[in-house]
Amino acid sequence: MTDQFKKRLRHLFAPDSVALIGSSNSPEKWGNRIFINLTRGDFKGRIYPVNPREKEVLGLPSLSSISDLPMGVDLAVITIPTKGVLQAVRECISRDVKCCMVITSGFSETGPEGKKLEQKIGELALKADMPLVGPNCVGILSPVNSLYCHMMPIFLRKGPVAIIAQSGSAADMIATRVTSYGMGVSHSISVGNEAVLQVADYLDYLADDQHTSVILGYMEGFRDGRKFLEIAKKITLKKPFILLKAGSTPVGARAGQSHTGAMAGSDNIIEAALKQAGVIRVEGVDELVEAGLVFINQPLPKGNRVGIISPGGGWGVMAADACTKAGLDVAALDREIIVRFNAILPDVWSHNNPVDTVAGVKGEIKELIEVLAASPSIDGVIAVGVVAGMPSLWGFLEGSRNKEEMTEKFAQSAMNHLTRSFDEVIRIRDHYQKPIVMSPIMPVDLGKILDAMRRIAETKGTATFLSPAQACAAYAALWNYASYRQRNS
Amino acid sequence: MTDQFKKRLRHLFAPDSVALIGSSNSPEKWGNRIFINLTRGDFKGRIYPVNPREKEVLGLPSLSSISDLPMGVDLAVITIPTKGVLQAVRECISRDVKCCMVITSGFSETGPEGKKLEQKIGELALKADMPLVGPNCVGILSPVNSLYCHMMPIFLRKGPVAIIAQSGSAADMIATRVTSYGMGVSHSISVGNEAVLQVADYLDYLADDQHTSVILGYMEGFRDGRKFLEIAKKITLKKPFILLKAGSTPVGARAGQSHTGAMAGSDNIIEAALKQAGVIRVEGVDELVEAGLVFINQPLPKGNRVGIISPGGGWGVMAADACTKAGLDVAALDREIIVRFNAILPDVWSHNNPVDTVAGVKGEIKELIEVLAASPSIDGVIAVGVVAGMPSLWGFLEGSRNKEEMTEKFAQSAMNHLTRSFDEVIRIRDHYQKPIVMSPIMPVDLGKILDAMRRIAETKGTATFLSPAQACAAYAALWNYASYRQRNS
Repeated sequence: MTDQFKKRLRHLFAPDSVALIGSSNSPEKWGNRIFINLTRGDFKGRIYPVNPREKEVLGLPSLSSISDLPMGVDLAVITIPTKGVLQAVRECISRDVKCCMVITSGFSETGPEGKKLEQKIGELALKADMPLVGPNCVGILSPVNSLYCHMMPIFLRKGPVAIIAQSGSAADMIATRVTSYGMGVSHSISVGNEAVLQVADYLDYLADDQHTSVILGYMEGFRDGRKFLEIAKKITLKKPFILLKAGSTPVGARAGQSHTGAMAGSDNIIEAALKQAGVIRVEGVDELVEAGLVFINQPLPKGNRVGIISPGGGWGVMAADACTKAGLDVAALDREIIVRFNAILPDVWSHNNPVDTVAGVKGEIKELIEVLAASPSIDGVIAVGVVAGMPSLWGFLEGSRNKEEMTEKFAQSAMNHLTRSFDEVIRIRDHYQKPIVMSPIMPVDLGKILDAMRRIAETKGTATFLSPAQACAAYAALWNYASYRQRNS
Repeated sequence: MTDQFKKRLRHLFAPDSVALIGSSNSPEKWGNRIFINLTRGDFKGRIYPVNPREKEVLGLPSLSSISDLPMGVDLAVITIPTKGVLQAVRECISRDVKCCMVITSGFSETGPEGKKLEQKIGELALKADMPLVGPNCVGILSPVNSLYCHMMPIFLRKGPVAIIAQSGSAADMIATRVTSYGMGVSHSISVGNEAVLQVADYLDYLADDQHTSVILGYMEGFRDGRKFLEIAKKITLKKPFILLKAGSTPVGARAGQSHTGAMAGSDNIIEAALKQAGVIRVEGVDELVEAGLVFINQPLPKGNRVGIISPGGGWGVMAADACTKAGLDVAALDREIIVRFNAILPDVWSHNNPVDTVAGVKGEIKELIEVLAASPSIDGVIAVGVVAGMPSLWGFLEGSRNKEEMTEKFAQSAMNHLTRSFDEVIRIRDHYQKPIVMSPIMPVDLGKILDAMRRIAETKGTATFLSPAQACAAYAALWNYASYRQRNS
């Protein structure tokens, strides 16, 4: 990568001017939809629609050819049919366009002929030191720059989570889930066929991006495995990088190849190499998102000993299973912890880790969680359910006229209680510098739990999780990363 | 089990009269909350509050002792402190109470002394042919009988899903998730310490229960493994039984033992025995719920060949991975299928299974899914995303004034389109008698997707799934059960 290339790459995420090659007034065309998404996303720079058959596109005067562009436009987005793309890129170069994004598909993913065309485009762009995204991509969302240069009408909260995906549908699914959980996105990148810019190049850029503190990846194959691992190794010393490597089965790999033309390679070798580079590998999209969100504002654990606390015995057992499978130590409780819980919990509490506070949860949330967080025998806490103060919630029962009202008030009451208690949880976490990971699971409607999770994330900056097992899997990502950093710094 | 015992068991789920031993006017007491839940849940039978210190409880005259009960009350619910429970059960027997439910905890889960007391209670009840639930349970929800005899204010849709759990918190989590997905529950049973009635007894009852078509179980250990497997084997020839066996790790098993006093046993042996009995074992609560809901109104597949269809390449790859890992055959497409898709899809479609319809999804949903369902080379279909008709959705874009409106309209439009298309999906499914399992995943807010799933379930009686991998895991449960039935009938 030349200095010129690197310098230009900055303009990709925060362009002052965008040329839309193939912009259109017809709502059936991507050149129409991307235009609308860009403007509705509050893009503040200049837009140059290029379309020889239109005088105006969506209210802006249309240029009849790329050669009419002023010199040095920051980003050109190409949506014209496959056969015209090579020439369009050539013309962009002649107008000194800084970066190109090719949305158009029909290249290496379709066979040898498409591959040849794609290579020509790549060589041309590289020779001109021009970063090029795609082809065959859905675009880039960069909420921190109000840039929504993308096929779908997706608008996101700004935040510290960056997404890089070898699949537009995966990128969009990941990005919208992050937002659904109340967290925000810095950049979401659909890399397409990677004719020029590869996953590794975006990683390299994000390593020093001040907006990004955690990176989520979806990959089906590696263009240049050595380069990827080298850069991954560098970045994981700065920021956690969590990766869903799909195509782990032969059928999935074949599908991946026909999708973006990327080769998958042996899964065992990939697994080992990723581990060595400090990349946290996960199996599914939800796990990917959760393993990423858990890092936001949580301190890294110093060791693998977790204290689990829950008012539900079954939730505790499920959490204990999940932690053990993930290599966490559900540590025996020391005498000091037992004495302190004896003073505040009913006699029948479990006297063991997981701490089952049993149904009639007494005490305040801060007391209960602090017993664990304060102990030198525990490196972090997983709290499942509303672990305290529930008796104070029951006042509404008799006053409710029917079951609908009771259901509603129960959910509201539990979730408000949890949201209110969260400042105490954060105080304890920050005071002891130990992670406290929670699942606000309650026997209420899932949508209500999701609402509470979103509210907590948006107002307190901390992610919570939909189930005990999910909270534990996310905690395990924290510990995996922490232990890698301990071994490699 | 004697005939008398069996006959009485019926009254447990549909009692005409309930005595509340320990009912109370104080909202801190479970004897107060259960009373309120029972009445707000529209229980139509007689309620007899028993409390020596009250004249009235919640507006009903209170009996001063169990001996004041009329003879032959259907169900007595006991919430008094541990030390009084044995005597209360004895008195219930002398008043010929048909069934008992002991909510009170402090028995075998606390140690040898509690265990002895629990055994005495068990022997007493068995000798009197009296079915007894618990002790140490949260109660029973029986929506089909409007019976909400339970510690928590949880009210559910009526439906075909039965739940049996060795954990109240697990039972409640499972039941509320079923309802969150828009499906309904027949009975949800928290079995507690199983002093008399064991999981196997409830299974036996549910085998012939006309309200129940699928059974979800959460277990931490087996009281009588031989009996359990014998009954499980019998029931799985009639109805699918899906089981989350927790305590699969030593730490989880230890936690389970201190929770309900059940012994876990070797996980490998359990795994093999469950498989042989036709029980579908899953790892987590969401998987449990989804593997159960998929059975509702879906035909069983005749073989393991699935056709996957999606407008998102990455979603297809993830689905292919998930299917392959689960032992499903992502079958090669035969010529006939390819010819038919060539006629209705853009040139760049994947020409392979998964069928990637690519971004500009043309055609009607019925055409696309029917190509796969009609083929003799495919036993069932997994459709991920809104697989057709999307171009018709884009009209709203230009008219939207800002990104909030666009986001909202995009979600609404996609989800309405899917809901409307669902009748066609059902027609194809029923015509070809092949399962069609869908994930309405779209890059919109998760809450919106959940709403669509609930609407589809409530109005069309069919479950859909939150992600490609979840849809595939659910489909795998269908196939596992179908192949077991093929081998064993």
